[in-house]
Amino acid sequence: MDATKVIEVREGILSANEREASALKASLDSHDTRMLNIMASPGSGKTTTILATIARLRDRLNFAVIEGDIESQVDSNKIKDVGIPTVQINTGGACHLDVPMVKPAVDLLALDDTDCIFVENIGNLVCPAEFDIGEAAKVMILSVPEGDDKILKYPMMFSVCDVLIVNKIDFLSLSTCNFDMQALLERMAQINPNAKIFPLSALTGEGVDEWCEWLLSFIKPLEKGE
Amino acid sequence: MDATKVIEVREGILSANEREASALKASLDSHDTRMLNIMASPGSGKTTTILATIARLRDRLNFAVIEGDIESQVDSNKIKDVGIPTVQINTGGACHLDVPMVKPAVDLLALDDTDCIFVENIGNLVCPAEFDIGEAAKVMILSVPEGDDKILKYPMMFSVCDVLIVNKIDFLSLSTCNFDMQALLERMAQINPNAKIFPLSALTGEGVDEWCEWLLSFIKPLEKGE
Repeated sequence: MDATKVIEVREGILSANEREASALKASLDSHDTRMLNIMASPGSGKTTTILATIARLRDRLNFAVIEGDIESQVDSNKIKDVGIPTVQINTGGACHLDVPMVKPAVDLLALDDTDCIFVENIGNLVCPAEFDIGEAAKVMILSVPEGDDKILKYPMMFSVCDVLIVNKIDFLSLSTCNFDMQALLERMAQINPNAKIFPLSALTGEGVDEWCEWLLSFIKPLEKGE
Repeated sequence: MDATKVIEVREGILSANEREASALKASLDSHDTRMLNIMASPGSGKTTTILATIARLRDRLNFAVIEGDIESQVDSNKIKDVGIPTVQINTGGACHLDVPMVKPAVDLLALDDTDCIFVENIGNLVCPAEFDIGEAAKVMILSVPEGDDKILKYPMMFSVCDVLIVNKIDFLSLSTCNFDMQALLERMAQINPNAKIFPLSALTGEGVDEWCEWLLSFIKPLEKGE
């Protein structure tokens, strides 16, 4: 097997996935349902951010969550515990979600009663950035302890995201924390000037309201009192 | 293109890589050079841990570093700054290193003058766990801010590693940090009881000596005063 063949297979997968993603997005649009693709490193706080958002907005939006994991149902159990419809995808090794995995999960949801679907992707800053899943927006979470230089090392994820959440800002108070927010913002302005950026702590709640306000305006549920 | 074909290509890659990894390890052994495969999420402190280790042991071991990154030379520049032979691999998108990438980098090093090669893999808890690169040991770094539950979500990496470094223990002092070290140790005892575990802070230096002692005994440089 030569390298060319591997590349052809890979390109075939990517373009087929893109076509299916457009079809899935169109289907979601027809139900006025917006899907958000939440991507981040392991442990950056994807689930905690989703839970904090749902807690603040569940009276104004109908949520559902699709949880992508290699194995385990740790995260989907946390979502179920708060009474939100949840579908677990276990990829059994695959390091990212794609449409053939996400679509059957979407099909299990009552779309007419769903304004917003959070899809928690596999914790990985590399491959998820390449695969559209039919989302209305890509939301990347970077956590403060990961460092401000991640944008130099994983530029694709930072350049394709519509929203960058900088989570765990409570860690900025630690004397050994050397995260330079200004450096991150300047780099982001260079490679992705249109991205919305929300520094917050999903755990303490600081900054979460600003992110929720944006999300509410993005989802725009006309049927919910506007 | 059907899914079966993709799986066949993938399995072909994995088994070819394993054969090449054995050959590379045998070649390194013949030079008394030990290669360590350093794997972790983005931002868990791989480079900082490598630098802290080199600072403590450079009078007793001859080091070299191979830096794997999607793009950029951020990390290899840090290693070069302290005067250690460094080779940068830019994968241009690939989310893990394999032998065809690592071997040409090894070939650039003066193996007879090298006791220990650190290979800093791509920041990713998924795919690097599947690909041997000719290493004498797999070292996984988990950082405290990522959370103690990562072992449930990325079990393969935790089960294949020979060493688990729990980095950034300085973050344990933060009141909002909810990391449960005991829970991690208990889970690790179940899935990988033989792994050596070193809690440390590469930044403050706490715990680094214990890891360095183990490393020194593992490398055993007979030609260096033993």
